[in-house]
Amino acid sequence: MLNNDTIIALSTPPGSGAIGVIRLSGPEAISLTNQVFSGKDLAKQATHTLHFGLIKNNDVVIDEVVVSLFVGPKSYTKENVVEISCHGSNYIIQQIINLLINKGARAAKPGEFTLRAFMNGAFDLSQAEAVADLIASDSKASHEVAMQQMRGGFSTELKDLREQLIHFASMIELELDFAEEDVEFANRDQLRELIQRINKVLQRLIHSFEVGNVIKNGVPVVIAGKPNVGKSTLLNALLNEERAIVSDIAGTTRDTIEDEININGVVFRFIDTAGIRETADVIEAKGVERSLEKMKQAKLIIYMVDAQEEQAEVLKQLDELSKQATPFLFIVNKAELLTPSQKEFYTDHEALLISAKDKLGMDVLEQRLLDKVNLSNINTSETLVTNIRHVEALKQTQNSLNRVLENVNNPITSDFLAMDIKQALHYLGEITGTVTTDDLLENIFTKFCIGK
Amino acid sequence: MLNNDTIIALSTPPGSGAIGVIRLSGPEAISLTNQVFSGKDLAKQATHTLHFGLIKNNDVVIDEVVVSLFVGPKSYTKENVVEISCHGSNYIIQQIINLLINKGARAAKPGEFTLRAFMNGAFDLSQAEAVADLIASDSKASHEVAMQQMRGGFSTELKDLREQLIHFASMIELELDFAEEDVEFANRDQLRELIQRINKVLQRLIHSFEVGNVIKNGVPVVIAGKPNVGKSTLLNALLNEERAIVSDIAGTTRDTIEDEININGVVFRFIDTAGIRETADVIEAKGVERSLEKMKQAKLIIYMVDAQEEQAEVLKQLDELSKQATPFLFIVNKAELLTPSQKEFYTDHEALLISAKDKLGMDVLEQRLLDKVNLSNINTSETLVTNIRHVEALKQTQNSLNRVLENVNNPITSDFLAMDIKQALHYLGEITGTVTTDDLLENIFTKFCIGK
Repeated sequence: MLNNDTIIALSTPPGSGAIGVIRLSGPEAISLTNQVFSGKDLAKQATHTLHFGLIKNNDVVIDEVVVSLFVGPKSYTKENVVEISCHGSNYIIQQIINLLINKGARAAKPGEFTLRAFMNGAFDLSQAEAVADLIASDSKASHEVAMQQMRGGFSTELKDLREQLIHFASMIELELDFAEEDVEFANRDQLRELIQRINKVLQRLIHSFEVGNVIKNGVPVVIAGKPNVGKSTLLNALLNEERAIVSDIAGTTRDTIEDEININGVVFRFIDTAGIRETADVIEAKGVERSLEKMKQAKLIIYMVDAQEEQAEVLKQLDELSKQATPFLFIVNKAELLTPSQKEFYTDHEALLISAKDKLGMDVLEQRLLDKVNLSNINTSETLVTNIRHVEALKQTQNSLNRVLENVNNPITSDFLAMDIKQALHYLGEITGTVTTDDLLENIFTKFCIGK
Repeated sequence: MLNNDTIIALSTPPGSGAIGVIRLSGPEAISLTNQVFSGKDLAKQATHTLHFGLIKNNDVVIDEVVVSLFVGPKSYTKENVVEISCHGSNYIIQQIINLLINKGARAAKPGEFTLRAFMNGAFDLSQAEAVADLIASDSKASHEVAMQQMRGGFSTELKDLREQLIHFASMIELELDFAEEDVEFANRDQLRELIQRINKVLQRLIHSFEVGNVIKNGVPVVIAGKPNVGKSTLLNALLNEERAIVSDIAGTTRDTIEDEININGVVFRFIDTAGIRETADVIEAKGVERSLEKMKQAKLIIYMVDAQEEQAEVLKQLDELSKQATPFLFIVNKAELLTPSQKEFYTDHEALLISAKDKLGMDVLEQRLLDKVNLSNINTSETLVTNIRHVEALKQTQNSLNRVLENVNNPITSDFLAMDIKQALHYLGEITGTVTTDDLLENIFTKFCIGK
């Protein structure tokens, strides 16, 4: 996976802009740039310095640029790295990249800079993956989790577990060497105690995926209810609130996240609402059952009834809802029309009274949404698993350790013990990249953007 | 126009990417960054150095970044400039910008960094405008012209003219001071000779706009002819050829330039072809006149007939075409169907024989397109005027100088001479920005992108 050549790519987003940054990494990064750079002799400059000059193709000036020099190993990839900051014209960028490719650089593959950083030990695999998550992060929570992971929180936690296991693995290996003497170097009680301790951590990490995944990908929510109860009005009310918030945070991507609401840093994602809206019509005709089936895709249902609905009908719908596993919020729209006795009926059934049109009750609704996903008091500086690859590896580790537990008191199975512990170590290693295969790396890094 | 505060903007294109670069300029650029940067004390670092560290909002890590330090006047704007290279996430970029705005920076207006560079004397106005042209350049020729202008070629040429005129202006002022003595410090023959020399340069520059504009904005071309002669097929044939070329040059913008063809660095732009295609139907019904009216928008017409067309009808169309001022290329499609005598007829009328479907004759057609715009032997390292503002100022300069010529031998008009020469100097000064108004500057810099 690791070549010793010099790679090049545009590292800033494509499109016209004030500046574009072209990155080179590899043993020849500085010498290749030097061949096309008119200015100081880059080979003689100190690391972490900036140099103004021209990029020329023979006598033709391509651009006035500023070159950033990072002499390996003091760089992102730990190789020589040059960043050329040029005018942000596609034509110029392409000319410079082509020129340097002609001189001997190679167009970088997606994520190849980060792959090199990983291969050269700048960070482990879960940290490399966090770089991609960090770039994709679009909320306070997802940003914090990715940052925590990139800065090595997850890796540190796993490293401790792994070291303790390695100790026992070597003890058991030692027993196997002295098999005929029937000694026991690895104290079985201590091993059992260690594995139970590790399992507790694994359990917590595996469990954290539910939260981590929600933070990374958002909470899928469905607004359901009969036609014309005000579902779209509610969505718009929530989204309008959101737009004001979003414009402070990530205005440029607004058009692609129209159906997302960011509440206190947690993204609520309204999935397939068109489809659900359609099936909402079906409720009347064929009962709530079929649309509830659809709602199972959601982590959370906002179920809405009209204030003027018959109480018997409301109770029927609530009954159906309660049979579902998906948690739901029961809300009554057009609450301003309720009589005191109606109000009492709904309050008895834990309904939240709102007026979507007048945006009344939105703050309470938002708080209830947060309460339902139980994220309001999450400590994102704590290690959370956000990656399905990691959670799978953690589960495999747990399976191997459970087999160790089963055999721990059986004196004839030291061989199996050693094997299962090794297996557990293998799965843990896959997360941080102590154990890797080309397939695994390719699978991870092709998801990166080019230039990273 | 120039404030003494510290401005901030994202300088790379918006969107997700490996890295984003946030630029600050102003007296507080370094001290503001220092307040949120965990790493070395930036205030104590040398200019043109790079520093790895964290951007933190109190205790919350926003990102790991590399900070580029340019201590004024050794920077683009000649002020203190800091560039923060962060992970290319919209969320992170917005967080960092908001954080620094809270500390006291101000969001930069479009082109404000370049405006500051101009105001601080880093370059003149025509060079500043060339920066925007450079970013927008999408072909070899437009890139070369913008680069030549940005590097000051145009400015140097104007500076010489201006200095010679200033000399005469001061001589004539001197004469006015000694008016009662009737001396002549400014030799009238030399003045006339100088103005004629200047006029020759102005004429060349004004004339160069025709070429310069074509290079910057492309040659508007219309493919005309009766329905079903193969106009769309020809356009596709030309565009296909282009796609292969473009993919080497500016692949990312391909979808927005579908109707442009880059031939040897000259862009041919097919304007409003849909409209023209529509009016093509009108030819049959109401004659060629009306559609020829439309064709006047073009610099060049490709007029296409079918090989099987009646010769009398062809002659009629050619006759109408010849009455137009717009140059045209007469081409015959489906040439493989021509009999020898038909071939002779078309060759006699200087037709180019092609087969659009089989892409035969395309290279000759492209050469003819280049010949028609007479750009094939252009020396783009020569000064070309590409900016309508500049050409207008040059024409005003010429008008003033012509008035000088009219009065040069009239002894009672030294006052007018001085005034007209000053006027000429004023217009020349507007080009390079020696003379500016807030309106002029605002008009120029609001067309820049933010962050430049």
